[in-house]
Parts: sequence; structure tokens; C-alpha cells
Amino acid sequence: MKTLLAKHRSIRKFRSEPIAPEVLQDMLEAASRASTCGNMQLYSLIVTQSRELREALAPCHFNQPMVTQAPCVITVCADVHRFSMWCEQRDAEPCYDNFAWFLNGVTDALLAAQNLCVEAEAHGLGICYLGTTIYTAEEIARILDLPKGVIPVTTIVVGHPDESPELTDRLPLDAVVHCEKYHHYTSSEIDELWAEKETSEETRRLLEENGLPNLAQIFTRNRYRAEDNLAISRNYFALLKKQGFFNN
Amino acid sequence: MKTLLAKHRSIRKFRSEPIAPEVLQDMLEAASRASTCGNMQLYSLIVTQSRELREALAPCHFNQPMVTQAPCVITVCADVHRFSMWCEQRDAEPCYDNFAWFLNGVTDALLAAQNLCVEAEAHGLGICYLGTTIYTAEEIARILDLPKGVIPVTTIVVGHPDESPELTDRLPLDAVVHCEKYHHYTSSEIDELWAEKETSEETRRLLEENGLPNLAQIFTRNRYRAEDNLAISRNYFALLKKQGFFNN
Repeated sequence: MKTLLAKHRSIRKFRSEPIAPEVLQDMLEAASRASTCGNMQLYSLIVTQSRELREALAPCHFNQPMVTQAPCVITVCADVHRFSMWCEQRDAEPCYDNFAWFLNGVTDALLAAQNLCVEAEAHGLGICYLGTTIYTAEEIARILDLPKGVIPVTTIVVGHPDESPELTDRLPLDAVVHCEKYHHYTSSEIDELWAEKETSEETRRLLEENGLPNLAQIFTRNRYRAEDNLAISRNYFALLKKQGFFNN
Repeated sequence: MKTLLAKHRSIRKFRSEPIAPEVLQDMLEAASRASTCGNMQLYSLIVTQSRELREALAPCHFNQPMVTQAPCVITVCADVHRFSMWCEQRDAEPCYDNFAWFLNGVTDALLAAQNLCVEAEAHGLGICYLGTTIYTAEEIARILDLPKGVIPVTTIVVGHPDESPELTDRLPLDAVVHCEKYHHYTSSEIDELWAEKETSEETRRLLEENGLPNLAQIFTRNRYRAEDNLAISRNYFALLKKQGFFNN
């Protein structure tokens, strides 16, 4: 098992052949077996395989080629709409249009998503999560016709890999694991945790390409800039309200 | 693979024996291999094994016996603190104290959490997610000494199972999977999707126990009541601001 999870790498180049229906079925069933809040299944998986719709979604993901190249794009949504509709049909007053249930929906959605990805990889498929989903969630919601009570959380592209990238580096396990309570890092511990990353060949190449003095500045000045972070925050939060997840 | 994912059930009764250190190590490594936003690893896993601290956490989880019975309680947190600290030490201005990065941290945290659970189950261990985490996140943050930039998202109890429950029912796969775009349910489709659940022996027993006319009302009037939902929403959102995730 560890072998499978340990060898995950994001795949960004795909062969065009579709996913076999029985494999897709296994992936979706694996997703549905993940833990879910009160067994309420507060998520929806929107499986987009048509070229036309994948092309419509592509700009929402900054036209990364994998969105049209991969045969299958799965938009993972928090969903309290379905459960609320059921309640209303049973004279039960739903009260899931608030922030707590956004969080419960997000949790359900992401646990299901990860099961789906593990199952896909067990079948030899490749996956990539698209963080762009929260940048453009409103447009995605429009394209996929999401009703109130449903909001995109992440997107997964899946297909047959057409590349075999190296394993990505990670911080030492100590960086993310805390024993008993939160361990408050000293400055020199932070230096040590990042030392290997900062001295890698990959980093040397990135610094040269970007003309920046260190890896951290590649993140703050290039990859994820303050003005974008703020705009994404405001837009997604506005959508959260619009989709009815903030009537606290 | 599907076999493992398909047979997941939450375990709520545990034997007292601890988790073997090498198994715990495998679980944590599996967690660290999950996809992560920009390879930033915006999460922390707080592994609490001391009886004293598990007893301190227990009231945050409504004193469910499994919190002290299971040898290991893992509090899963979104964490932008570590990455921000690194940036600051490199003259790079972090801007992760906003809602977008709360979402990125939550996503990283939950994908890692699910990998951890899959790996635990592959070793024959049992797990249960504790949704109570968001109810009492502020108190958990106090007990575990979380700094600004870190917030609890969920908790996992892990250990050797002392029960072997039946597989929980799920809605038909059609309920959560949408083909191409969101499928807007008709009233009668909702009725059909819930029909099996509503007519089960388990539901009949619950209705009798609760003296309520239908399953939906068990959710709205008993399990997750409006006033609690609103209080949890407000409290968690206040904590989000306090922990520095809402400077949009």
C-alpha cells in the first residue's frame, strides 16, 4: 500500500485515450466509500468528458493543456443542496446554509477526491489536482450549472500518463509532524528544514530562470503574488455567500 | 486497491495497545506524499499519544470514549505559519493570511489526512474522523498551543480495532456523480435516491428510538440542530480571523 501512495506524482501530460468505464466506476465507488459527515455525503463529483465542455472549462484553469488533453476532468464540489432538498421534501427544516456546513461539505468532498485519486493510480492512471479551481470558482459554477448550495472546491484531471516525472521533494517529515503538541520552530530549525530544498539543482535552475535571490521570493514575488491572493480570497468568499454558505 | 478502500468503516472501539512506531512512520510518510498546493505542504499533523493530553482533548470531542481509548489522536491542521516564517527569514513578504490560503491549507491538510487513513487501514488499523473538531476548534488550538496561521480542520483517532462493524450504507452512486454538468434533481429523483435508506431496518429502529416521523427530521431536529450549526459557524469563523486567515 505504502508503495502506491509513496510513488504518487502529479501527471500533467496525458495520452488521449479515454478511461475505461469500469475503471472510472471503480474510482467513483472508491470515492463514495470515504468517510463522510454523519453519512450525509455532502459533495458532488462532476465528471466532464466531452471535449466541448473541457474546452469551456480550460480558461478557468489558465488554459493549462492538460485540461483538454486529459480525457476526464472531475470538478469536486461541496454540496448541501441535495441533502437540503431531501429535508424539505420531508417537512424537515434544513439549516446547512452556513459556514460550518461549507466546512463539512469541503471535508467530505476532499476525502472522496483523494480516494478517487488513490484508486485511479492503483489502475495505473495519472492525476493532477488543479488549484486554479478556487481562483475561478464562479465561472466554473456557471459553466457546470451549479445550483445554490453547491460550490467547487478542487478539480482533478485524470487519464493515462504520457510522462513519468521524478518524485517531487518534500520537507523532512519533522517539518509537518508534531509530537503531542505543536512544536514552535526556531529560526535555525526553519533554516534546516528548508536546507535541502534550497540547495537543490532544481532550485539553482529556478533562481537563474527567475533572476531572484532565493526560493522563497519565487513564491512570494512570482508564483503566488499578494494582489492575486487577495483577489482570489475576496472573490471566493463572495461566491460562498452567493451560493448560500454564509447565512450565519 | 478498491478492495481496501471499499471496505472502509469508521472504527469507534479500540484495543489499548499502541501503534507500532514503524507503522506510524509509514502512515505519516504516506500523508506527506499526498498532493500539496505548489509543494508548499500547508498543513501540520499533531500526533498526540500521551494519555494526559488525550484526556485534555476528550471534552473537545464531547467525551466520546474513543478519544481516550484509541492510543493515538491526530489533529489535522491547516498551517501557513511554517511557510510564512520561512519567507520572512528570506526577505520574502508572505501573504498567506487570507481566505484563499485557508482553503489551500485545508485542502493540503485533508488530502494528507486521507492518505494517512488509507495507509493505516492497509496496516489493519481502524480510524475515525471526528467532526467535532470544528465545534471546539478554539479550545483545541489552546490545548495544542497552535500559533497564528494554524487552525484545526479535523481529527483522526487511530488504533487497533476492537469492533468489526458492518459496512455503512451509501446513497446510490448516481446521487453524487454528475455526468458532464450538474444534474438538477427532480423531487421524485430525490425520493428514489433516499428510498433504500428510508426503508431500512436501521431507519425503522432510529425512528422508534427518536419518536420522529422520518429520517430527515432525525438530522434536522436531533443530530444537527439549527442553533448549534449557527453557533459553530460563528465560532469557527471568529477563530479563522483570530488565527490570521482572513486579512482579505
